[in-house]
Amino acid sequence: MKQAISLEEIYAPIQEYIPDVEATILNILATSNELARAAIKHFFSSKGKLLRPALCLLAAKFDGEINARAIRIASALEIFHSATLIHDDIIDAAYLRRGVSTVNVKWGPQTAVLVGDFLYDRALRTIFDAGIPKVTSLMYETAEQVCDGEILEAKERNNFNLTEQEYFTIVEKKTASLLAMCVEAGAIAGGLPLDDVLALKQFGMNFGLAFQVVDDCLDFTGEEHEFGKTLGSDADAGVLTLPVIRLISLVNEKQKAEVFRIFKSEDSFEKLQYLKDLFAEYDALDYARQRAREFADRARLELSVFCDSSVKRSFEGLLAYVFDRER
Amino acid sequence: MKQAISLEEIYAPIQEYIPDVEATILNILATSNELARAAIKHFFSSKGKLLRPALCLLAAKFDGEINARAIRIASALEIFHSATLIHDDIIDAAYLRRGVSTVNVKWGPQTAVLVGDFLYDRALRTIFDAGIPKVTSLMYETAEQVCDGEILEAKERNNFNLTEQEYFTIVEKKTASLLAMCVEAGAIAGGLPLDDVLALKQFGMNFGLAFQVVDDCLDFTGEEHEFGKTLGSDADAGVLTLPVIRLISLVNEKQKAEVFRIFKSEDSFEKLQYLKDLFAEYDALDYARQRAREFADRARLELSVFCDSSVKRSFEGLLAYVFDRER
Repeated sequence: MKQAISLEEIYAPIQEYIPDVEATILNILATSNELARAAIKHFFSSKGKLLRPALCLLAAKFDGEINARAIRIASALEIFHSATLIHDDIIDAAYLRRGVSTVNVKWGPQTAVLVGDFLYDRALRTIFDAGIPKVTSLMYETAEQVCDGEILEAKERNNFNLTEQEYFTIVEKKTASLLAMCVEAGAIAGGLPLDDVLALKQFGMNFGLAFQVVDDCLDFTGEEHEFGKTLGSDADAGVLTLPVIRLISLVNEKQKAEVFRIFKSEDSFEKLQYLKDLFAEYDALDYARQRAREFADRARLELSVFCDSSVKRSFEGLLAYVFDRER
Repeated sequence: MKQAISLEEIYAPIQEYIPDVEATILNILATSNELARAAIKHFFSSKGKLLRPALCLLAAKFDGEINARAIRIASALEIFHSATLIHDDIIDAAYLRRGVSTVNVKWGPQTAVLVGDFLYDRALRTIFDAGIPKVTSLMYETAEQVCDGEILEAKERNNFNLTEQEYFTIVEKKTASLLAMCVEAGAIAGGLPLDDVLALKQFGMNFGLAFQVVDDCLDFTGEEHEFGKTLGSDADAGVLTLPVIRLISLVNEKQKAEVFRIFKSEDSFEKLQYLKDLFAEYDALDYARQRAREFADRARLELSVFCDSSVKRSFEGLLAYVFDRER
């Protein structure tokens, strides 16, 4: 499937600052510690989408020029996100991240725990040094939400009674809260009026919910590349996502027991096929995508307070991108 | 060996605040997240020495009464320390911590990574909320030093060419920097003059070096209790400490190869016996303890700027305690 809108188009209003962000990230993470340096170099050798800095910069750009503080905050947010990924990869015992081996696999869990801690510390410190107390508080609040969401997710693994509402609470905490913070912090750093800050925060939260729900669908349907993420990894890790929760709510008790047995089986390939067949039968993926569209609609509504501009079109573009992307 | 000076005596000037600290720790860590709550309750069910809050409060007490900010900072420092312990126990795959099972063993590495992150976040946030920017900066600086020291230690495992100087750099970063920060932060929160703050910081750094060197000796010679820490755990983890480094510097090349072989063997009991015999032959433990005494002497010298007081006697008592304790 060809993407209808590309990240390049969406990032256009802030594209000129992206190299700054990439340089600032490496600058913030400079260290004389050889092992940390090697792990950091390795991790950042494969570029992510830089979605979080982009959200931050787009929000900051709403009111004109982008200042140095916004660049540093945007960079710190990507570092914070990277810290959570490095720790996640220990948790999930993942082999690949963005097509390269995880820090956990390459250097072991010791180094992965510590390098994650190192990134986490530098991120929080950079936010603090930016000197906007509201953003510092927000960072602590968000870090806690993310952590809380991940602990909840870990606790609810293989819980076949997980409700949609509980699932959305986890998604809101572990994913949407950080995406919401990115736009909120950018808006604050950019000096936007309070009403606009709040609207953008709500945009970010709903965008984040849509983003994660689609991500959870892509875990079943995305294209598996040679070096990409393994399909069905959520199910393999015992994480129940919306399509599975939907499916369970529709099948009878006997089928539910069978779904549970397959869900817990070691045969990833068989599991994926089985679940995909049942999803098709019960329209579970369509249902999940529909829920994601509802969040995207709410996010779009939040943008209605802004006049038309290239930045606004980028935010709208992000909502389209959520559904167009392959991974 | 009976202890010549007890922690109770040393803590006497601030004993009345210890229950406050214990309550504040639990208060700071209050969460609706059941899994996090269970892990936190479990971890704190077995009391540590509360050495870090005690150092902070003693420093704050130098100038009179202890204020609420000092209590919160002291509590946050214990939480920060606890976060590093929880992550350390993943790194070392340790079974026991203070006589109870580690979070890693009881709930798995996933939860241990996340609960450590949670504690880390709450600690830093509490320090920030205390509203003393100098202490907040110090916390970030220290968190980085601790992390840096641990990464260095991980990197230097089984490096038989590790020098004494490199060992002391690791100890200064991973242990002494936090103990130094505890007294420095307490002194700042207590409103002490800058000269006193700096003297106490230097005290803390040298105390910390002495403390860790003795700890490293105790890993070979301490009393092993039924639920206590396992003797020889550093050597089992491939961590070279001062007695081993000293030994290696004294033996010939052939013996060195033999020490290396034994050091890397899986037989912990044989290894411990072998190393203890060689330590005795080469006075390696005596040498290490002598180096620790030199740091303690430097720490004592830093106290000379203070008039005699119960608090000063407590700081002096801590220097004696380092050498008297059994664990």
